[in-house]
Amino acid sequence: MMRSKIPWLLLAYACCWSTGFCGRVVVWPTDASHWINVKVLLQELVLRGHEVTVLVPSSNLLIDYQDTSSPFTFEVLQVPFSQKTLDALMEDFLNFWLNEVSNAFPWEVMWRMKKDLEVFTNMSKQTCDTLVTNSQLIAKLQQAKFDVLIADPLSIGGELVAEILGIPFVYSFRFSDGNVVERLCGGLPSPPSYVPASTSGLTHHMSFMERLQNFLIYLYTDLFFLKVWRDELDEYYSNVLGRPTTLCETIGKAEIWLIRTYWDFEFPRPFLPNFEFVGGLHCQPAKPLPKEMEEFVQSSGEHGIVVFSLGSMVYNLSDEKSNVIAKALSQLPQKVLWRYKGKKPETLGSNTRIYDWIPQNDLLGHPSAKAFITHGGTNGLYEAIYHGIPMVGIPMFADQHDNIAHVVAKGAAVHVDFNTLKTQDLVDALNTVIYNSTYKENALKLSKIQHDQPVKPLDRAVFWIEFVMRHKGAKHLRPASHHLTWYQYHSLDVLAFLFTCVAITVFILVKCCLCCCRRCGRIAKRKKE
Amino acid sequence: MMRSKIPWLLLAYACCWSTGFCGRVVVWPTDASHWINVKVLLQELVLRGHEVTVLVPSSNLLIDYQDTSSPFTFEVLQVPFSQKTLDALMEDFLNFWLNEVSNAFPWEVMWRMKKDLEVFTNMSKQTCDTLVTNSQLIAKLQQAKFDVLIADPLSIGGELVAEILGIPFVYSFRFSDGNVVERLCGGLPSPPSYVPASTSGLTHHMSFMERLQNFLIYLYTDLFFLKVWRDELDEYYSNVLGRPTTLCETIGKAEIWLIRTYWDFEFPRPFLPNFEFVGGLHCQPAKPLPKEMEEFVQSSGEHGIVVFSLGSMVYNLSDEKSNVIAKALSQLPQKVLWRYKGKKPETLGSNTRIYDWIPQNDLLGHPSAKAFITHGGTNGLYEAIYHGIPMVGIPMFADQHDNIAHVVAKGAAVHVDFNTLKTQDLVDALNTVIYNSTYKENALKLSKIQHDQPVKPLDRAVFWIEFVMRHKGAKHLRPASHHLTWYQYHSLDVLAFLFTCVAITVFILVKCCLCCCRRCGRIAKRKKE
Repeated sequence: MMRSKIPWLLLAYACCWSTGFCGRVVVWPTDASHWINVKVLLQELVLRGHEVTVLVPSSNLLIDYQDTSSPFTFEVLQVPFSQKTLDALMEDFLNFWLNEVSNAFPWEVMWRMKKDLEVFTNMSKQTCDTLVTNSQLIAKLQQAKFDVLIADPLSIGGELVAEILGIPFVYSFRFSDGNVVERLCGGLPSPPSYVPASTSGLTHHMSFMERLQNFLIYLYTDLFFLKVWRDELDEYYSNVLGRPTTLCETIGKAEIWLIRTYWDFEFPRPFLPNFEFVGGLHCQPAKPLPKEMEEFVQSSGEHGIVVFSLGSMVYNLSDEKSNVIAKALSQLPQKVLWRYKGKKPETLGSNTRIYDWIPQNDLLGHPSAKAFITHGGTNGLYEAIYHGIPMVGIPMFADQHDNIAHVVAKGAAVHVDFNTLKTQDLVDALNTVIYNSTYKENALKLSKIQHDQPVKPLDRAVFWIEFVMRHKGAKHLRPASHHLTWYQYHSLDVLAFLFTCVAITVFILVKCCLCCCRRCGRIAKRKKE
Repeated sequence: MMRSKIPWLLLAYACCWSTGFCGRVVVWPTDASHWINVKVLLQELVLRGHEVTVLVPSSNLLIDYQDTSSPFTFEVLQVPFSQKTLDALMEDFLNFWLNEVSNAFPWEVMWRMKKDLEVFTNMSKQTCDTLVTNSQLIAKLQQAKFDVLIADPLSIGGELVAEILGIPFVYSFRFSDGNVVERLCGGLPSPPSYVPASTSGLTHHMSFMERLQNFLIYLYTDLFFLKVWRDELDEYYSNVLGRPTTLCETIGKAEIWLIRTYWDFEFPRPFLPNFEFVGGLHCQPAKPLPKEMEEFVQSSGEHGIVVFSLGSMVYNLSDEKSNVIAKALSQLPQKVLWRYKGKKPETLGSNTRIYDWIPQNDLLGHPSAKAFITHGGTNGLYEAIYHGIPMVGIPMFADQHDNIAHVVAKGAAVHVDFNTLKTQDLVDALNTVIYNSTYKENALKLSKIQHDQPVKPLDRAVFWIEFVMRHKGAKHLRPASHHLTWYQYHSLDVLAFLFTCVAITVFILVKCCLCCCRRCGRIAKRKKE
């Protein structure tokens, strides 16, 4: 069958005709799993009659701009780094976090994180440069008269493009390190006493030492990012916009922040009216499996199946690691479907089948699904939550440790350490989540919360994007805190003033008392004399 | 036509049959305008198949428990205060705030507020006592196996009844003075730098002096209410429940807080996942007017009409005041419909008609409506917002000053002072909102925000009540801050620890430096010698 845009366009025009409102959306995407998530949102926008144009770097990981059946229009930005360079960088990144991190000293890990951030920011800046220095392209985009820009603040530049085009923008976001972007630029209040900093692996119930740790993480990320932004990006943003500004000020102009979690996964925390928690927007009921796969699943009988994936980035493992895992899986009575592109492990059992790709959502939604072994990416976790499947988490890098900490705290997962992983650890963890019924019960509880919402997350996300298009923004949701300095926000000037008043009053009172005492003393002395 | 419950019950059973879920709801209402608002919500619950039982004091203002056509079951609490006492109290209350407040000194106003609070709290306590000392009634209520209790924390006691019955409870709430209940008991974060304390009349954009004022209002309300609660209610709650507890702790167990505002009226502020802003839930499209009224409205021609009501509590005014107002109205080219039960003013113009009661929502939704003169009650304001009608606010007491300050800040109203009101002030204010088009435009902007929501406020309110019934609560939305003390919440123990660490480090460093200096000094001295 020829792959074509035609079915998408027909659906879109039909919808556009029926609703009477068709907008133009331009997208500044973030690659990898972020793209997988936002693509679902963009597809829905197309289905509702909107035109979607994606500004895509010529070298990227998962955004297939040559796919002629894609419902999106792609505007390719000819970036100065090649696909080969990008792939090599990713391989180096994965190699460190999968194989080298366990032997590294803490300061080496810290240095590596800083380096990764610099490399990533630099690539985003280069991508941004490709656009802002291309006046022809800017003119073309301006002529297209877009209604809204959708960006992900993890890849800087989207907000800058929106400013240049003079259009409102909406973020689709998971989080930043220590929530620094949401807090400092978005005004999101996050009391360190019960709102754990993202990537900290902490929960909302913290001991004194954990609260101290959380406080210091907030402080560290604030100082670290403020320095990085000041050194790297504030001047860049000012130069491009031709007026003094900062990265944070520009980010703060976002009309709506669509956060890719919900209260099933997220700990309850304060938020603002322009923050919508739309976690699980990509989830949907399971579709039938391919025939061969369905037969394999059915052959599991009452034992059921275990679904195993380490996500869209990790294709292979070291021989040692893959054998440890395969041996553990071989000891299960369940059938296992493992998404893996590496060399077939020697210890692979007859109950385990390896696939280049698996229909993960359909497998997790299959009645035979008993457990999900996951690296802890948000997309996969949400598919497991949606279908109520308990998890074994093997986090490796980025937000994965933190994500797994959340589902462990909610009682729906067991965590195993990738670096020290032994065969028995994985067997024990799987047996626990499969045979200790509380894990299944807790996973079903989370699933109920996910399903029992007034409006589905995807519909909420689309609603707010369409709202911004209809009303040219959502200024009525913007908190006044954006107009305050940090010391005004925390009422430090008010406290200083009150403290000064109290100090002056006390000083005057003490002086008066001393004066009275001295006078009384003198009178008494005179009387005595 | 005989008034009967039968049509309600038929509708309810039909709905119950179709949805397959019929719950039992018990209500601890607050009187006056609060009842008018919550009644709409309760009627909707009945329509969706739920049984609603209202615990009503035998003496009250607006809850007609003898109405046989009411869709609710009433459980009458034989309170020790008579209807006469209550009416006299209300008359005295209104007399002070309408006629005496302008001649009172500030401390007299403060004293009066304290007295009113005491009287009101005492009546709530007496009502509560009527129930908690009646073991037969408690047994009856326990046997009824209610799924949820709906209360308004302005009348204390609802949360206590829910605890006794062992059922979850949901609040329907406007606000407390200085948001003290929401902040201290509900955990609602309210930075004093941009979240104006309710009843302060401040907006979200504050000067330094206004921020100072706001800070002091928060501080004052915190200390004042903590003292009142400690003296009056903490012991009472502990005695009734038979375990040491506090009013605030019991209030903090609310599953959901349904707040009766939305971001059209409210300034953007931080909130928590168990707070839903459902302002305007009682609003609906206008229905046709009675024939005589429609003819009068039509006779206004292109000039249109002005709708005038001082709410459900204020029935009459002093002769002087009513004549000042009537004279102003007589100078308008518009026709005026005035809800008023007092003596007909001598200066009443031929363009003004006085009614005992008016279909306010239908009049405001009429195409001829040009302006609304209002005391600033939330229900009326929301009807004006819903229909996009600019307002002239004449606030008198309670939240009315604050409410009018909100719509004035949003550019949809002009404020006039009731105490110093002159004929020309009212004429000028009305001409401004009618002929300066920005007021109409701003009112229409607010109306658009009210109408353009993913789910209507009434449906959202019902959804969360039904959610609590389905899941026996909404614990996944409850922030962990409820487990922290005030100093832990503000990280003061962490700050004190860090400060101590820094102080000790500095002390040791200074000591070491001094020691070195001394040693160096001695060596230099010896060398010199």
